[in-house]
Amino acid sequence: MALNYAERMGNIRASEIRELLKLIEKPEVISFAGGLPAPELFPVEEMKEITREVLEEEGEKVLQYGTTEGYTPLRKKIAERMAKVGVNVTYENILITSGSQQGLDFTGKIFLDPGDVVICESPSYLGAINAFKAYQCSFAEVPTDDDGMIIEELEKILEKTERAKFIYVIPDFQNPSGRTWSVERRKRLVEVANKYNLPIIEDNPYGELRFEGERPPAIKHFDTEGRVIFLGTFSKTFCPGLRLGWTCADTEVLQKYILVKQGADLQTSTIAQRELNKFLEKYDLDEYIEKIKKVYKRRRDLMLNTMKEEFPEGIKYTYPEGGLFTWVELPEHINARELLEKAIEKNVAFVPGGSFFPNGGHENTMRLNYSNMDEERIVIGIKRLAEVIKEML
Amino acid sequence: MALNYAERMGNIRASEIRELLKLIEKPEVISFAGGLPAPELFPVEEMKEITREVLEEEGEKVLQYGTTEGYTPLRKKIAERMAKVGVNVTYENILITSGSQQGLDFTGKIFLDPGDVVICESPSYLGAINAFKAYQCSFAEVPTDDDGMIIEELEKILEKTERAKFIYVIPDFQNPSGRTWSVERRKRLVEVANKYNLPIIEDNPYGELRFEGERPPAIKHFDTEGRVIFLGTFSKTFCPGLRLGWTCADTEVLQKYILVKQGADLQTSTIAQRELNKFLEKYDLDEYIEKIKKVYKRRRDLMLNTMKEEFPEGIKYTYPEGGLFTWVELPEHINARELLEKAIEKNVAFVPGGSFFPNGGHENTMRLNYSNMDEERIVIGIKRLAEVIKEML
Repeated sequence: MALNYAERMGNIRASEIRELLKLIEKPEVISFAGGLPAPELFPVEEMKEITREVLEEEGEKVLQYGTTEGYTPLRKKIAERMAKVGVNVTYENILITSGSQQGLDFTGKIFLDPGDVVICESPSYLGAINAFKAYQCSFAEVPTDDDGMIIEELEKILEKTERAKFIYVIPDFQNPSGRTWSVERRKRLVEVANKYNLPIIEDNPYGELRFEGERPPAIKHFDTEGRVIFLGTFSKTFCPGLRLGWTCADTEVLQKYILVKQGADLQTSTIAQRELNKFLEKYDLDEYIEKIKKVYKRRRDLMLNTMKEEFPEGIKYTYPEGGLFTWVELPEHINARELLEKAIEKNVAFVPGGSFFPNGGHENTMRLNYSNMDEERIVIGIKRLAEVIKEML
Repeated sequence: MALNYAERMGNIRASEIRELLKLIEKPEVISFAGGLPAPELFPVEEMKEITREVLEEEGEKVLQYGTTEGYTPLRKKIAERMAKVGVNVTYENILITSGSQQGLDFTGKIFLDPGDVVICESPSYLGAINAFKAYQCSFAEVPTDDDGMIIEELEKILEKTERAKFIYVIPDFQNPSGRTWSVERRKRLVEVANKYNLPIIEDNPYGELRFEGERPPAIKHFDTEGRVIFLGTFSKTFCPGLRLGWTCADTEVLQKYILVKQGADLQTSTIAQRELNKFLEKYDLDEYIEKIKKVYKRRRDLMLNTMKEEFPEGIKYTYPEGGLFTWVELPEHINARELLEKAIEKNVAFVPGGSFFPNGGHENTMRLNYSNMDEERIVIGIKRLAEVIKEML
């Protein structure tokens, strides 16, 4: 029996990555495909302690319904943390979401009418593309280089795009490219957004995982008109299983997110919010992040060094100063989806880059994740990948 | 600065109930307004134990990302529980959601195009009305009596409603009316839905909280064509703070819900799912529900008895055989919103019934919750409410 679905359902596809992850769940596969944090670093012992404490102190409250906005002490701590990237806000600018993915879905719901155009980096985050597509938009991809979006190209696109609705960017260790925007580009993006009266969605799941150099100010730091909406998450700096993220915006804009959250799931888990709040009180999250960074930096170095040694000439890849991914450009005639099929035969996996371009093309690219694989297997995996590439040259 | 929002944002309003709950958070207020379970019954000690156990046994896994569909052992247990209401399904028919509210939002997203019509009971659940409104639908309210929707009226409405998209009902201890559908009406609803090829959304958060009599089979029990989508939750039978619900549907239909969940928030909390699964393994949830029912039954009896003694003549109210609410009809000239203002002066609160009618009217009604207030305060609160009603007669 065929039910009569909404038109938008024609636009919604399964995330290629999540479908892929299911296929390669065998332990023998060396996977550079997911965007998973390293589970061996999760604060399991601390979680045991803080869960016991929050249940002992206020058991009835932490298991009860809470407000849609989120637990105020946690919102306050997040507001304070925003100062690290030059954003001065109070808890009234913070909504707790179920991961930052939920902030992306809400963004689509709040801003997009069918036929609207999302301006994004080329390539861009697949999960955002899929979330926005559900609201029947199309995409205009802006060319990027090592400093982020090329602003002249952005302006050219905006001049000819009538229904541009917002600009979506991941300025720090971008997913999938691993690149970080320069400070100058951040400033200029805000200027252009002001000129065209467009909101900027600043998606920043990885910014705190910087292995070297100084963290640049957020794009929202340069926001003079309350048009930058910052999406954050604890999935990469604490643990993803609790599903805790936040949206930071001007109160008037945030009110829309709160309204949408009310209808979407009432609120984020009360106990998860209390647990994170307790963790932030008892432990030093930044100290914990230092541990994560040390491990990921070693893995990045090892991956890039092995690629340098093993990959044939003519293959380009980015140097991420932090985050979880590097981005590989193969010679034009190599299709990464075909490469993946051959790689899986050798028990190695990655995500073909084509999925990250909403308008298609770029099939000679791939995204490699280094956070979720131990050092030995990184070396073995890259060597095997190099072999498969050589076979296809 | 005014951003340019999507058209749908004009339809989204704050839930009157949640806004109200914020206003009356003072401890001196006797509130019959919310739909909160009694927190003193929450299994706090058990939660301490199971959380410790899941973290000890598989700490890294419970804090990591999981699949969009949910944790398979938990899905299996839910599928087994569905047999209690005559629904024979496997885990492949179950998607774990962040509360059943999320199932409502997904339903809107999956089925509704702007201008579509949702067929619902009159009155209906405010949270569902708000969730659906975000997808720019309108509502056709079907008159109800003590046996549920009046099927003849439903047919009349369907004959003249061109863009009816689905039928949304809460057959057990309905929110807000407290009424339960007869078995005959359940059967006939499915027949009518078959005739008009419409999906039925069966929202059932309260069915397990039956104080007396036999639990009727679910509407989905009579589903011969895979058109009934059943939404369940552990918010009223376990605890709402974990945000755990489920959607049960034919696999083809469920696939749409899974796709939408992927874009909406990737997945429901891994650790919360593992905790509930552990609870279901170690403890007898039905035994725990018996405890809840005993307490709520006493509160219901006390509320209804006090109303019988204290309320003036001519005021009608429903007799709920379970669940959380009773529904009061005042004389037509009394406006429950005005009554509320006066009641709040006496530190008593409830939800004016008008909010539960998507097309307005019925301002002489109110919803009273008895699950979240101790016995002494139920008596005091109803007496005060009776005084205010008498003043307005």
